[in-house]
Amino acid sequence: MDCPSPSQPNWLEILRRAEPDRVVWIRERDLQEELLQEYREALHAICGSLAGECSLAGGEPLKTWEQIERLLMHFRNWGVTRTSVVVTTGGGALSDAVGFAAAIWKRGVRLIHIPTTPLAAVDAAWGGKTGINWGGSKNQLGTFAPPLIVHVDARWMRTLPSREFHAGLAEVAKHALLDKTAFAACSDNLPPWPPSAQGHLAWTQFLKQSAQVKQNVVQEDPEERGVRCILNLGHTVAHAIEAFTASSTEPWLHGEAVAVGLHFALFEMSQLALSERPREAQAEVQAARMVQWLHEYVPVPNIWPFGAHDLWAHMVHDKKNVANEVRDVAWRGVGEVVWPVHWKKDSFEATWNAFVRSWNNAHSDDSN
Amino acid sequence: MDCPSPSQPNWLEILRRAEPDRVVWIRERDLQEELLQEYREALHAICGSLAGECSLAGGEPLKTWEQIERLLMHFRNWGVTRTSVVVTTGGGALSDAVGFAAAIWKRGVRLIHIPTTPLAAVDAAWGGKTGINWGGSKNQLGTFAPPLIVHVDARWMRTLPSREFHAGLAEVAKHALLDKTAFAACSDNLPPWPPSAQGHLAWTQFLKQSAQVKQNVVQEDPEERGVRCILNLGHTVAHAIEAFTASSTEPWLHGEAVAVGLHFALFEMSQLALSERPREAQAEVQAARMVQWLHEYVPVPNIWPFGAHDLWAHMVHDKKNVANEVRDVAWRGVGEVVWPVHWKKDSFEATWNAFVRSWNNAHSDDSN
Repeated sequence: MDCPSPSQPNWLEILRRAEPDRVVWIRERDLQEELLQEYREALHAICGSLAGECSLAGGEPLKTWEQIERLLMHFRNWGVTRTSVVVTTGGGALSDAVGFAAAIWKRGVRLIHIPTTPLAAVDAAWGGKTGINWGGSKNQLGTFAPPLIVHVDARWMRTLPSREFHAGLAEVAKHALLDKTAFAACSDNLPPWPPSAQGHLAWTQFLKQSAQVKQNVVQEDPEERGVRCILNLGHTVAHAIEAFTASSTEPWLHGEAVAVGLHFALFEMSQLALSERPREAQAEVQAARMVQWLHEYVPVPNIWPFGAHDLWAHMVHDKKNVANEVRDVAWRGVGEVVWPVHWKKDSFEATWNAFVRSWNNAHSDDSN
Repeated sequence: MDCPSPSQPNWLEILRRAEPDRVVWIRERDLQEELLQEYREALHAICGSLAGECSLAGGEPLKTWEQIERLLMHFRNWGVTRTSVVVTTGGGALSDAVGFAAAIWKRGVRLIHIPTTPLAAVDAAWGGKTGINWGGSKNQLGTFAPPLIVHVDARWMRTLPSREFHAGLAEVAKHALLDKTAFAACSDNLPPWPPSAQGHLAWTQFLKQSAQVKQNVVQEDPEERGVRCILNLGHTVAHAIEAFTASSTEPWLHGEAVAVGLHFALFEMSQLALSERPREAQAEVQAARMVQWLHEYVPVPNIWPFGAHDLWAHMVHDKKNVANEVRDVAWRGVGEVVWPVHWKKDSFEATWNAFVRSWNNAHSDDSN
């Protein structure tokens, strides 16, 4: 367990101060036994015995109403009250689904999230968005239910498949594009993954720093009525890629789709007329650095089975649209974004096709 | 439509300022056609045509997950987005259920409630509690989703059955016991019910004033982590009476059960030892006045088919309990309550039995 800084109590102290009548623990399957034992002992030291615990298969299949009702039955059997605390340990789908169940149980039970993926550690577990899929649409039902704390410990991630670990770092790149401190952190050398016993501390710190960007934005706009929209940078395209490939034999991971969405946003900036680029030189340098960082840390599939037309067909159904316009976030430099920009079908398809040509050129150069 | 005061915009102005992309209207069945027409025209003047409207049977059967899914399908078909506004017109069960559906749809659509019962007008529609019944328990699932505004217009209540109208006034009595201004208002003469064309304005004002008590408390503690608990005055017993009689041939109305719960709370105060009653004389006078007001405005059924033991069996399952203690609110004078007081089985049963004896004596006196 990492040491708390004197100014910020650690998660166990926050759990203790919450004075829960009961603590329950819901985890993803197949976590590391040694870490589980360490955390179980820590929980017991705070709250005596747990009122209930279970482990579940994570991932999107968890995000259905049927699964929510299973969780609610657990809550009932364990006697969970509004004074209880639910601790989750898992990826983003688990914190989304368990978060939703806790948010609607007796009008809201408090949560502590312990993310086990980089995606959850810097993004999904923060900010209180909970949700399940419904009627064929992703995250159609949900609430805003901010957890008491998100406890980041990179050791949970050691056993993740390398592809999943690296895909999650796309959200780190997004935060770097939104915040100067996070951008600077991306130039530091990171220990190789999976890290040594000591290396995990550097990764934990790195992920926590990235998560701070999300916290800052969410604090300013907890219910996404304004500035929080900038967190959708790269995600309009990403959601379309995910939706298109979801039912294919090679579904893309969320982070991979976000990486391509970010590459596309950086490309879109580079295409602007000079008159629209007040800080052009700096933004070009920043963009080049993040393109390189993304290539190093977030590899994406070689085969792109979708065209501009396919993506557009999904983009017009995005939840953030108002009255059938496709709204997106544009990038103009680190910490400088424009929201909303409105895509029309023709301009999107032309820009996407130019992006793909540029991407293919760069990658055929690579292989020469 | 009543005139807005200059300082507070009326509901139509608030709807206009919300700049909704779509407005939908969900109503209880069998409302007065003339009023519906008046409100429909007012809505059209603000938002052009409605994106959707429907009328539903209100009451507890609406508060199920199956009904919520029906509402969600309407939202999908109507294209409801996070920028839309859902207007409800109905009783407390309708605003509870539609409020819950709106609260979880795309993580929260904005609401305007137009209550059609006094219960909803002074209590249920305010404060953002939404909920449905689940697993055999009342309001087991829900959220806090405060509406943009609650628009009170007593004309909607004219066609209510007299029993239902008067039962709803129990919450007015509760507010009077919690707040000096509301207490004073209960000594004013009210127009007879149903009122004349002018009389409805006096009733509208009276109900709005009572609702202010709820607003004040909720503003201080929106998620019931503290002072909001005082609104449960009379409700621990009331919920037990409702639960006990729900499956009988003569189910009590919520307000009737609350009236008996308030009578019980006033009786409990009168039984205190002198040393525990610092403001005894004043509280006794206040209690006597509210007993009289309750008898005048909120008649309750003559036959009480439950005993202390039956009520206790339900009370131990209350959502507000922590670790199996029965927590209740005690009344010590207008605006002076104690929370929590802890009932033990023996002391509750003894107090209840004494209360029933006193009640029967008073009522056999009445009939002599």
